[in-house]
Amino acid sequence: MEGHLLDAGTMNKALDLIVENGGSFKVLNFNLGIERQSTSAADVRVSAPSHEVMEEIFSQLIDLGAITPETEVCDIITETCTQAGVAPDDFYVTTIYPTEVRVNCEWVRVENQRMDGAIVVGVNSAKCKLLRDLEVGDRVVTGVEGIRTVRKTEQREKRGSEEFSFMGAGVSSERRVELVVEQIAWELRQIRDQGGKVVVTAGPVVIHTGGAQHLSSLISQGYIQGLLGGNAIAVHDIEQALMGTSLGVDMQKGVPVRGGHRHHLKVINTVRRYGSIAQAVEAGIITKGVMYECVKNNVPFCLAGSIRDDGPLPDAQMDLIKAQAQYAQLLEGTDMILMLSTMLHSIGVGNMTPAGVKMVCVDINPAVVTKLSDRGSVESVGVVTDVGLFLSLLIQQLEKLTSPYQIA
Amino acid sequence: MEGHLLDAGTMNKALDLIVENGGSFKVLNFNLGIERQSTSAADVRVSAPSHEVMEEIFSQLIDLGAITPETEVCDIITETCTQAGVAPDDFYVTTIYPTEVRVNCEWVRVENQRMDGAIVVGVNSAKCKLLRDLEVGDRVVTGVEGIRTVRKTEQREKRGSEEFSFMGAGVSSERRVELVVEQIAWELRQIRDQGGKVVVTAGPVVIHTGGAQHLSSLISQGYIQGLLGGNAIAVHDIEQALMGTSLGVDMQKGVPVRGGHRHHLKVINTVRRYGSIAQAVEAGIITKGVMYECVKNNVPFCLAGSIRDDGPLPDAQMDLIKAQAQYAQLLEGTDMILMLSTMLHSIGVGNMTPAGVKMVCVDINPAVVTKLSDRGSVESVGVVTDVGLFLSLLIQQLEKLTSPYQIA
Amino acid sequence: MEGHLLDAGTMNKALDLIVENGGSFKVLNFNLGIERQSTSAADVRVSAPSHEVMEEIFSQLIDLGAITPETEVCDIITETCTQAGVAPDDFYVTTIYPTEVRVNCEWVRVENQRMDGAIVVGVNSAKCKLLRDLEVGDRVVTGVEGIRTVRKTEQREKRGSEEFSFMGAGVSSERRVELVVEQIAWELRQIRDQGGKVVVTAGPVVIHTGGAQHLSSLISQGYIQGLLGGNAIAVHDIEQALMGTSLGVDMQKGVPVRGGHRHHLKVINTVRRYGSIAQAVEAGIITKGVMYECVKNNVPFCLAGSIRDDGPLPDAQMDLIKAQAQYAQLLEGTDMILMLSTMLHSIGVGNMTPAGVKMVCVDINPAVVTKLSDRGSVESVGVVTDVGLFLSLLIQQLEKLTSPYQIA
Amino acid sequence: MEGHLLDAGTMNKALDLIVENGGSFKVLNFNLGIERQSTSAADVRVSAPSHEVMEEIFSQLIDLGAITPETEVCDIITETCTQAGVAPDDFYVTTIYPTEVRVNCEWVRVENQRMDGAIVVGVNSAKCKLLRDLEVGDRVVTGVEGIRTVRKTEQREKRGSEEFSFMGAGVSSERRVELVVEQIAWELRQIRDQGGKVVVTAGPVVIHTGGAQHLSSLISQGYIQGLLGGNAIAVHDIEQALMGTSLGVDMQKGVPVRGGHRHHLKVINTVRRYGSIAQAVEAGIITKGVMYECVKNNVPFCLAGSIRDDGPLPDAQMDLIKAQAQYAQLLEGTDMILMLSTMLHSIGVGNMTPAGVKMVCVDINPAVVTKLSDRGSVESVGVVTDVGLFLSLLIQQLEKLTSPYQIA
Repeated sequence: MEGHLLDAGTMNKALDLIVENGGSFKVLNFNLGIERQSTSAADVRVSAPSHEVMEEIFSQLIDLGAITPETEVCDIITETCTQAGVAPDDFYVTTIYPTEVRVNCEWVRVENQRMDGAIVVGVNSAKCKLLRDLEVGDRVVTGVEGIRTVRKTEQREKRGSEEFSFMGAGVSSERRVELVVEQIAWELRQIRDQGGKVVVTAGPVVIHTGGAQHLSSLISQGYIQGLLGGNAIAVHDIEQALMGTSLGVDMQKGVPVRGGHRHHLKVINTVRRYGSIAQAVEAGIITKGVMYECVKNNVPFCLAGSIRDDGPLPDAQMDLIKAQAQYAQLLEGTDMILMLSTMLHSIGVGNMTPAGVKMVCVDINPAVVTKLSDRGSVESVGVVTDVGLFLSLLIQQLEKLTSPYQIA
Repeated sequence: MEGHLLDAGTMNKALDLIVENGGSFKVLNFNLGIERQSTSAADVRVSAPSHEVMEEIFSQLIDLGAITPETEVCDIITETCTQAGVAPDDFYVTTIYPTEVRVNCEWVRVENQRMDGAIVVGVNSAKCKLLRDLEVGDRVVTGVEGIRTVRKTEQREKRGSEEFSFMGAGVSSERRVELVVEQIAWELRQIRDQGGKVVVTAGPVVIHTGGAQHLSSLISQGYIQGLLGGNAIAVHDIEQALMGTSLGVDMQKGVPVRGGHRHHLKVINTVRRYGSIAQAVEAGIITKGVMYECVKNNVPFCLAGSIRDDGPLPDAQMDLIKAQAQYAQLLEGTDMILMLSTMLHSIGVGNMTPAGVKMVCVDINPAVVTKLSDRGSVESVGVVTDVGLFLSLLIQQLEKLTSPYQIA
Repeated sequence: MEGHLLDAGTMNKALDLIVENGGSFKVLNFNLGIERQSTSAADVRVSAPSHEVMEEIFSQLIDLGAITPETEVCDIITETCTQAGVAPDDFYVTTIYPTEVRVNCEWVRVENQRMDGAIVVGVNSAKCKLLRDLEVGDRVVTGVEGIRTVRKTEQREKRGSEEFSFMGAGVSSERRVELVVEQIAWELRQIRDQGGKVVVTAGPVVIHTGGAQHLSSLISQGYIQGLLGGNAIAVHDIEQALMGTSLGVDMQKGVPVRGGHRHHLKVINTVRRYGSIAQAVEAGIITKGVMYECVKNNVPFCLAGSIRDDGPLPDAQMDLIKAQAQYAQLLEGTDMILMLSTMLHSIGVGNMTPAGVKMVCVDINPAVVTKLSDRGSVESVGVVTDVGLFLSLLIQQLEKLTSPYQIA
Repeated sequence: MEGHLLDAGTMNKALDLIVENGGSFKVLNFNLGIERQSTSAADVRVSAPSHEVMEEIFSQLIDLGAITPETEVCDIITETCTQAGVAPDDFYVTTIYPTEVRVNCEWVRVENQRMDGAIVVGVNSAKCKLLRDLEVGDRVVTGVEGIRTVRKTEQREKRGSEEFSFMGAGVSSERRVELVVEQIAWELRQIRDQGGKVVVTAGPVVIHTGGAQHLSSLISQGYIQGLLGGNAIAVHDIEQALMGTSLGVDMQKGVPVRGGHRHHLKVINTVRRYGSIAQAVEAGIITKGVMYECVKNNVPFCLAGSIRDDGPLPDAQMDLIKAQAQYAQLLEGTDMILMLSTMLHSIGVGNMTPAGVKMVCVDINPAVVTKLSDRGSVESVGVVTDVGLFLSLLIQQLEKLTSPYQIA
């Protein structure tokens, strides 16, 4: 093992898992870096009472970034898929961390990294595949030999440098949201100026809490490159655009309109008549709002269906196999994801996203924020607050920032 | 208007909505029942500045159970559907309340009553249809003439009688759960003994909190006639049956098992190999748990897909149009629904369920319970508590009850 | 009974309570106002099987604003207090509603109205007293004869008029906070311009979430006439003023300072050395923050002690009998109370406050907001959001308002 | 530094804090234990740019259990208190960990260990004192020389042994409460059989949720040696004993009793008449419930006053300086504390309690549980659930246990 072994307790975790799985260890050698910037290295001999135990231990050590001596092997072990959509019993389950496998005596980076997949090996390549996408004949990686994951260990040095660094882990409703928003605004600006990619997952609460105009504004100003959600956010956004209400509540006065619970169905019916949201925009029926800005600014979106959907809108993708594929495609190459008050879609997105992508989770419910931001990675930050106010403040902070290019 | 007009403030709501919509009224006659059991009757003359306002007022008065003088008309107004899946602009949006329409000078009960649908009229019949199910040529009810909803007004008299009565509305984590459970147990026993139907919607938290054995027990004892959920509850239930963990947590010791986060994917792969949950049960692979009991006791289930699903299991219905149809079919004729820690599926179920079905919503999050039990009807009760303990207690209460048939 | 009997279901509640207490009724006469603005009147004959039941029914009817025929009596019944701090068994327990009692054949308004007190009658006067303040010889009102409460029934007419009207009841985290804040800002400006009185109850979360500068600003601009809280808000406010941290968290960077958990104790020690917060301000030690502005602007404050207090500060009132007295005094004549993230102190304040005072309850926890704003009165509004953002937004809204006097 | 340095990342924390405070380090020597049971030892040279920085670093290293080379000094540095209730500026602030100081060249254990105190040194002794208890002439420890804290490092070895071990840290509403309750029941039995001491802090929600009979049962069976709470739990417990309601809600039927909001005040008045709870018990007025069992079983209790108290009961201690002293006295020698749905009193108790005391925090609100159980110590466990059900289940589990003495 090499790297910042004391950071995040890696060394300790490694020794713990060996013992807990029934193995034992001897630390042969341990070089602690004598100064802060140094990395450490350790040689550890692992003993186990059986091959199964040893394999279980190795599979977990790989997750921690350890390199097993088997890496001198020239090729991982694979088994051929004999039933479409079903992996061999002993298949290696992928994590969110970048993974490399030995193919022809070389380390090959696994493409389409995501968690809970299998690795399929080609001639000189390897990629993650979902179980259901496995085809007969696919060579699926099994066992643990010849696999390693890459953990970013440089984080400590860079802290405090000019690079963006999110506030430490931990979710609390008792801290200063304004500071977090400032940092996010700064980061959004950076990503936009560098041609990066930001994707938003948003639930209908964004509209109910008055966030529609602010999210629309983010889109029209070029901060957002993709929108993921469900039927409901689009319905209530268009309801507000057409009738001034969201779920029947007047957004100017904040009070329910009598009969307003029927508004959303009238809206759905109208869009169905035009065939799609884009066609309703083109026909001049929808003239503002989040979906309008997406259409006008060519920001792609995907509305995944759910069991609770009314209607649905023609744009809602009710076949979830297709919806997951579209989500995954839209997320490719993303630098940052804003998760705005939708646990369902955000968990879906989290499953598809590899380590290294920054995630900002905003919700009024601390339990949701904890669940979403608990990936064991430094790149995610949770904010417990009202999403409408959050977006309002974010727009203000963005206005305060001067573009670096304007300075020059 | 006739009925218990002061109960639930019906009279007041009616006068309010007239004024708020821009109309005015004169109370021509108001007979308050002079004793408790009497019903009241009121004649109210409504004026409005335009036909549109008048129609809006009428559509809302109908929701309250008022009978408009237009009921002398022999037929409701209908418009023919000219585009599949799209209703006429002015279509009448249905509610959860039983509805009747005038056809050939007679009141005809609308079938398949559910909220947010349209009414399609046949020769001597009428039924609710979802927008997407409308076909070209369907005669869709528009406007408000010749429509009435039936509100149950007998509730006051029956209170305190031997019939089951749920605790009053209101959701609080500061009240005695044991009492509510006692009542629910009594009711479950009644429904079973009378050959009624109880459907459960359940999320994976039921398994995580140790409820699997208790829910299994409810099923094997004949208390449950249908199970609605998603991929996750089935996955973790089978994970517990096969590996003793739920989401990687050992259910006997309560601690995470190292490497346990991979268990659920191994389980999915195994079931995929056998083709379905039922086939895995028949093959002797799955030998206990919620899904096992469903298969063994011929309790039908539907697992609706969602964007967050891993795998999924072969049984997960990823086409949500079909999933909604299967849910609706499974819910037909239900007397009581237990909603156990799944907001998503429970909202879906609520949308499909007409008034009169008893609903019990259990969740640790008060906001979820409030949202689910807020239907303005007396038949729903919310319980803020740990769902595992709830089920444990429910089983105990059921054991305490002696069957009325055993007494005789 | 007279008034808007259908509003808020008063008539229905009255009939219900009669039956539930074991009595029965006949409606002798019921005049429903024929138009919206009219009031209604009803004569109801109540029968009860015993004097006790009748008295219980009357005491509850009084709470609803009914006038019992006994009002022709010239004097309420009183019993003399024979043990200091102890009321006669049958004493009348007061509510938050303005109350009048018959003394010498006249209706006399009860002074110091608050809930959960007893009424002590003088020669031509009456006032609320806490149990513990009762003295031997006090004439305490017992029974229910000759008592009436005054319910404001004019609310319906005034809605929509230029008078301030809060958004309807109900607490939800899914609505637009910006709208509520706009209304509160407008109201605060009105009260200040008319020389009214606003009192704030605030917990330490106000400081942790970055609200110190905004609350300071409200005070220095004359919007606040009193501050109620505990030891903690003052400690952390001064900690931020002296050391830039709140509970050890750097308020500029949002990260915990190592060793910062000791800051608050150092701060307490420092203020103890100077003898009081005011003396530390005068000595130039404290130069900004909420407490500083209170001292500088002569805004009185009371810090009530609690079992969890560290230190405490010399200003913390650890004798709670005195603290309650100071709170009550500070609240006299208040028009509006802002309750900012402190359930403990806000419940205390709610107990002391009569109906008619506007209450705004802000907390991130919906359960707290529900509990505080549930007084059955239209004057309270609950806001589920981050209190730091709430105050930030409130200051912005106030800046947008132009004083009516500046226009002229 | 010596001990299990990799456990809990102690080594890493030490190096981090040095750098973050502006110092630098060289690891002179690091002996990692080569097998699991071995301890490690490290020599680290610390450099700092100033005396202040060095002192700050040392004070934090002491908290981590490091021994500074200054331990060869024969005496800590002290400064004499010159103003009652005020410490010298540079006083050492205590933590929850057992602390030793050098007095006359010997390590002396500090008595009355608690956090947020100062250390006062006698001839051959030392003890914790609250700031307010400091007297003129007290020798108060300042600086950091000659101080060390003792961290328990043996925890790893003992895991899995027959000794009780709580489930790992982390608070979640998605785990199996039944398992935790089993463990707590087992521990309660052990403590009782060994003559240990268990103290309960309880809020009124215990009564509202039906826990009164279960908590009474715990007391009468000898499981509880002290009760800490406020006015409210005693009021509602006695209200239930006398009138069958809790805050006006009928505890048998679960519905509010009309007029029931006045019950608690009648109860307070009654107890005030008798002079104290004990006298009301002796007079035969109170015949069951939590307070009754405390009196009958000689279990001492302290009811700390708060600003929200009605009445209060004669037993409520409204002078909080005295209440804190009584709490602290009652907590002496406690083995385990059950914190039942009262954040206020539980935080107070937590502040007074040294490391090593087991703490069980039960609340329906996850945020409260997180806050209370977040002491960085393995001895506390949080349970998110309904407290009434928790107590019901605890009683059941205790009944299932057979006393070890009965076996023999």
